[in-house]
Amino acid sequence: VGVMKGVIVGIAPNVQIIDISHDVAPQNIASGAWMLASAYRYFPEQTVFVCVVDPGVGSSRSAIAIQAGNRFFVGPDNGLFSYVLAEQTVYAACVLSRSAFHLPQISSTFHGRDIFAPVGAYLARGVGISEVGMPVEPAALQRIDVGQLVRSDRGIDGRIVHIDRFGNLITSIPIALVPMLFSEMPVRMTFPTLNVDVSECRRFFAEGSDREPFIYGDSSGYVGVAVRNGNAAKALNAGFGTPVTLVIGSK
Amino acid sequence: VGVMKGVIVGIAPNVQIIDISHDVAPQNIASGAWMLASAYRYFPEQTVFVCVVDPGVGSSRSAIAIQAGNRFFVGPDNGLFSYVLAEQTVYAACVLSRSAFHLPQISSTFHGRDIFAPVGAYLARGVGISEVGMPVEPAALQRIDVGQLVRSDRGIDGRIVHIDRFGNLITSIPIALVPMLFSEMPVRMTFPTLNVDVSECRRFFAEGSDREPFIYGDSSGYVGVAVRNGNAAKALNAGFGTPVTLVIGSK
Amino acid sequence: VGVMKGVIVGIAPNVQIIDISHDVAPQNIASGAWMLASAYRYFPEQTVFVCVVDPGVGSSRSAIAIQAGNRFFVGPDNGLFSYVLAEQTVYAACVLSRSAFHLPQISSTFHGRDIFAPVGAYLARGVGISEVGMPVEPAALQRIDVGQLVRSDRGIDGRIVHIDRFGNLITSIPIALVPMLFSEMPVRMTFPTLNVDVSECRRFFAEGSDREPFIYGDSSGYVGVAVRNGNAAKALNAGFGTPVTLVIGSK
Repeated sequence: VGVMKGVIVGIAPNVQIIDISHDVAPQNIASGAWMLASAYRYFPEQTVFVCVVDPGVGSSRSAIAIQAGNRFFVGPDNGLFSYVLAEQTVYAACVLSRSAFHLPQISSTFHGRDIFAPVGAYLARGVGISEVGMPVEPAALQRIDVGQLVRSDRGIDGRIVHIDRFGNLITSIPIALVPMLFSEMPVRMTFPTLNVDVSECRRFFAEGSDREPFIYGDSSGYVGVAVRNGNAAKALNAGFGTPVTLVIGSK
Repeated sequence: VGVMKGVIVGIAPNVQIIDISHDVAPQNIASGAWMLASAYRYFPEQTVFVCVVDPGVGSSRSAIAIQAGNRFFVGPDNGLFSYVLAEQTVYAACVLSRSAFHLPQISSTFHGRDIFAPVGAYLARGVGISEVGMPVEPAALQRIDVGQLVRSDRGIDGRIVHIDRFGNLITSIPIALVPMLFSEMPVRMTFPTLNVDVSECRRFFAEGSDREPFIYGDSSGYVGVAVRNGNAAKALNAGFGTPVTLVIGSK
Repeated sequence: VGVMKGVIVGIAPNVQIIDISHDVAPQNIASGAWMLASAYRYFPEQTVFVCVVDPGVGSSRSAIAIQAGNRFFVGPDNGLFSYVLAEQTVYAACVLSRSAFHLPQISSTFHGRDIFAPVGAYLARGVGISEVGMPVEPAALQRIDVGQLVRSDRGIDGRIVHIDRFGNLITSIPIALVPMLFSEMPVRMTFPTLNVDVSECRRFFAEGSDREPFIYGDSSGYVGVAVRNGNAAKALNAGFGTPVTLVIGSK
């Protein structure tokens, strides 16, 4: 990763370079997409995000740049930008076809260094997104399932989209959709495939006992399930993709 | 952590952001306090330290900012600044009550991003510490036991305040207190609760054999016990808080 | 490591500081040397590399600075710069004897903070390399075996010089020496001490099956052996230093 920064400062010497995370499980696109989703809004406008979770490097997947909202995203066209594409207005997208903005020699295994980093640096220097490649329809870009919600009789159906390093389970259900989460109204999270129900709600981790799993509002902006001083993923035997239903009221 | 930096550059675009360490054991305040203690003196004056070892986030613990010596410290009031408070003159301390300097939406689990990072960025931009909240008496701030020394007949009593990633045991006894450490005078470190004595002293790790535990001057400025190419914590079965006595002379 | 950056910004406030890697196995000089070799060319001219893989700290090994090509290197004289010395023109080298450019107090275990970081910062500020110490003959600097190649009847003899975090085996054989690697001509990598032959060649990781080890062009610029979605080092029982022969044609 340091090498990518070397490439960037060689092109754009005065740029601020910030690491979002290196904790993405190797080659896990869904996890990388989620981490980007939970972070990008906190960065200033005009930020260029150079993203490398790229198991398909060397295959036929395209390298792309996207202007979404007032920020730029550079990386592989493999679904990594699915949340961004779903949440932001896409002003432009292009395939990185202009080799003048790449390193002179392109390896087959490290496009982060050879293509994404230099293109990102040129964008940060003010080069227009239309200059770095050929336009592509945003609708044609790859997307992964970002856990779209379904409201049913039983409640809101979603799934686990992320497990953080403490083992907390983050669902695809935004806190903003459930204003009654910390009201008097009973709420419970069911895991239909696991035959488990979590009915305790806590505003703060510091509350209550250590053993009991509970529903909480994750700092990412989504509803989560945690065990204080424990690992909810292990305790409930839940994983990435596990379906959940948030049931509101005493049904 | 990248998200906190995104928040910071959004407020103070030209600031230098440096990570001290992400190796603090999760939620271990004593370990975080020690790492800050061993690092802060090496940073320039006017540095703002934004510190997040925050197991009590969401509970009633306060968020604070401190001006100590010529540096600023922002974080939870949970003892993380105990060494700083013990070692530096405190010119001002305040509780971060002015929400104008926070992010608009405050999560209950990530004050690092929502409160400490923006306040730290405003301080780095030159906002006065008295503007970000209400003054609080330094004496009223939380402190942990930072291993205060007791001189006894037998020598200097202290305890293990840190175990580094190599398993080296760092005591609360400053090297500066023991000028005879590498002289002709015999010195030994006793672990009264473990019935262990270490009597070998080495100036350099590269000296001597691989098996023998030895006393050395840790780069943090404190006396340590190590095993070359080994793990002293495991070899001696010692841990955080284990009492030690440094005996000088052949008593 | 954060402490070293604190020292640097105290001396050279406007410098860009970039981490190359903290993944070097503790105290492994050969691995550190290789990582530096695979990275330094991607950084701009005038970059100062401050390098700390320093198992001999406190022993009699010297602290040195080198101007090689148009870049500067500061660190221990223990072989860490062997690739740089082999690959670049050395314009100047010196032993860091002038304590005016060190921290006032030198610990015996952390020269990275106390000597290399401040000297690197002064070089970045424009201090001449001849000012920070006494000149030394480049030929007198320590070097490790960087896997020099031997062409034999059987092919090109080299060895494994690096194992990356995925378990891919990187050899000392530059891709540039083997233009026929992805041509019609049969090529195989033999591991004479292991009685193993790898004869499949792949341009991309995404090609082919998951089980079969294959030869590929590593992004470092050297020929490698990998197992897709697997660990080649474990699968072949190969390690650092294992001899290899690249046989070209159907001999």
